[in-house]
Amino acid sequence: MVKNGTILYAQHPTGLIEPGVTVKYVEQEIDLDSAPLNGGVLVKVIAMSSDPYMRYRMREPDNKHAAFSPHLTLGYPVDNFGVGRVVRSEDPNLKVGDFVEGYLTFQEYSIFPGPKEQQHFLKYLVKIDRPPSIPASVYTGTLGLAGKSAFVAFDTWGKPKAKDSKTLFVSGAAGPVGTFVCEYAKVCNPNLQVIASAGSPEKIAILKQVGVDVPFNYKEQDTAAVLREHGPIDIYWDNVCGSTLDAALVNMAPTGLIIACGAIAAANTNGDGCNHFEEIFERSLTVHGFTLGTGESAAAMPRFYEVVTPLILEGKITTREHRYSLKEAGEALLAVHLGKNTGKAVVIVSDDE
Amino acid sequence: MVKNGTILYAQHPTGLIEPGVTVKYVEQEIDLDSAPLNGGVLVKVIAMSSDPYMRYRMREPDNKHAAFSPHLTLGYPVDNFGVGRVVRSEDPNLKVGDFVEGYLTFQEYSIFPGPKEQQHFLKYLVKIDRPPSIPASVYTGTLGLAGKSAFVAFDTWGKPKAKDSKTLFVSGAAGPVGTFVCEYAKVCNPNLQVIASAGSPEKIAILKQVGVDVPFNYKEQDTAAVLREHGPIDIYWDNVCGSTLDAALVNMAPTGLIIACGAIAAANTNGDGCNHFEEIFERSLTVHGFTLGTGESAAAMPRFYEVVTPLILEGKITTREHRYSLKEAGEALLAVHLGKNTGKAVVIVSDDE
Repeated sequence: MVKNGTILYAQHPTGLIEPGVTVKYVEQEIDLDSAPLNGGVLVKVIAMSSDPYMRYRMREPDNKHAAFSPHLTLGYPVDNFGVGRVVRSEDPNLKVGDFVEGYLTFQEYSIFPGPKEQQHFLKYLVKIDRPPSIPASVYTGTLGLAGKSAFVAFDTWGKPKAKDSKTLFVSGAAGPVGTFVCEYAKVCNPNLQVIASAGSPEKIAILKQVGVDVPFNYKEQDTAAVLREHGPIDIYWDNVCGSTLDAALVNMAPTGLIIACGAIAAANTNGDGCNHFEEIFERSLTVHGFTLGTGESAAAMPRFYEVVTPLILEGKITTREHRYSLKEAGEALLAVHLGKNTGKAVVIVSDDE
Repeated sequence: MVKNGTILYAQHPTGLIEPGVTVKYVEQEIDLDSAPLNGGVLVKVIAMSSDPYMRYRMREPDNKHAAFSPHLTLGYPVDNFGVGRVVRSEDPNLKVGDFVEGYLTFQEYSIFPGPKEQQHFLKYLVKIDRPPSIPASVYTGTLGLAGKSAFVAFDTWGKPKAKDSKTLFVSGAAGPVGTFVCEYAKVCNPNLQVIASAGSPEKIAILKQVGVDVPFNYKEQDTAAVLREHGPIDIYWDNVCGSTLDAALVNMAPTGLIIACGAIAAANTNGDGCNHFEEIFERSLTVHGFTLGTGESAAAMPRFYEVVTPLILEGKITTREHRYSLKEAGEALLAVHLGKNTGKAVVIVSDDE
């Protein structure tokens, strides 16, 4: 038996996640040789992703809000996307030593597939042929949920539109989705003017690193005024919703495109909206909302590694990480709602050997 | 010289249109034989359309809100879409006696093109080969702006989606756009369940006439409750925005479609919105906003008469009118914002000979 450090889902939050209350670190034990795998695999976890959508999963089972994401189950390890190495396998497709990416738990050792109580909207675990120069943890962010989300939506809707566009605006842009969009948009059209907002000097520095033409701190500058000066906006990538969306709506170019990727402002409350929805018809706008794996943008997924891995190796798409230990997983899950992380929030569970 | 009854644009409204104040009936005179045409035509007007978007045009010239619709000019006749007969022509494409549809003025006699102060986003006047069984005034509604708007958007986005859809919801459904959508949707997919809302018993009777499966009065029944019972909604045609949109957003099926055609609630105020925009990403929805002649849906316009005229002759697309005299044009322009008209609000200027 060996120690198996574990983050349990302990209590439904009513507002923000409370580390130590909503989720708790406990030390369990596991017998690496005999723990039942039921045809699956035992994985030594390397890194786990902290994503904003996880807050939606922290709810009563009969609460159907954000039904795209199955609820977490009280008393079970918190699950999400992560990476690790197979240490025992009953799955003919995965062998000991394989580097895997997919659905794992915030534990030192994770069994896939876990118990049926651990539902997930994208339940998979796949072997990855990782180029040695790409760190394992990159597969939780730029090559994980964040990168996949940014890629499928921008490749499906943004790329065709970007060819004839002058200006892209990205909100919540210093996170792993935002920087991916800023960089990938320049790959699609190097002449595109990229305006991007974030909420701290450290994040503005990131925006400059990734080649944003007009980076600005929305806490210090009026978003609508910046967009009026540098717009109109042909494509708006919305990670935020709320008042930022309103500022974008009244500065969109006719027949502009909005990609609705998230709504940080809504995740901890009972919804968030906008006061200028009518601009959508007045300006003949198209809005595409999506969650990964659903709808039209899902068709872009098979191209993901093929297109993005070379762009990472060429340095055209870059990664920054804010690392947390397994014991700090609660802080990592909270940070993405407060904007406290600078770079991808990732929980490092073990060194990659 | 003959009398030329005219509706002048007299004062910018701050809230609702005030008949007699915002627009005024005056009696002008015109010399039918010598009034300068500048290469255009003199038209004896038969009927003029009253459309909700006209409220947007009643603003200060430097007010850029709803910039898709050029402002009306104080002291000039109110212009919009209408029908009439050519009584004198300097245009080689139009001859005396031709029945024409397009950009005219609320006058007994209208000259096209008018002075440059009468701007318009769709400035055209075309000869129509009208089947004798279709009344002239139908070309201001079902075969005018309302029908064209309903057709181009539903044909472009709704029709492909309708093939695999179970349920359509139409708000503000008893007007000429709404009934067109309800009827045309059944042409596209006879098995589609159509839910439709309106605000009076007379309008509910119209919804029943046009084959709506679930008609309801939103003033008496809770929209969200009706949609929950009969949904989820695959396609929502939004004429309303505001709280109706919110009720629809939380009852949309995953990967559903919203067509944003108007926002009655916003036209008389400083915008209108929704509190559940985040559902757009959570449910992977697509929203297409449009105004006629702009963006992707404009490509459907050349098919309009070819597809819709036969459907009218077969009785599959029907018309109801609420008729006003020229002197009552102010009432007609106001009625569409109060929902007082039952059927297409049309100003009958003269009998069609």
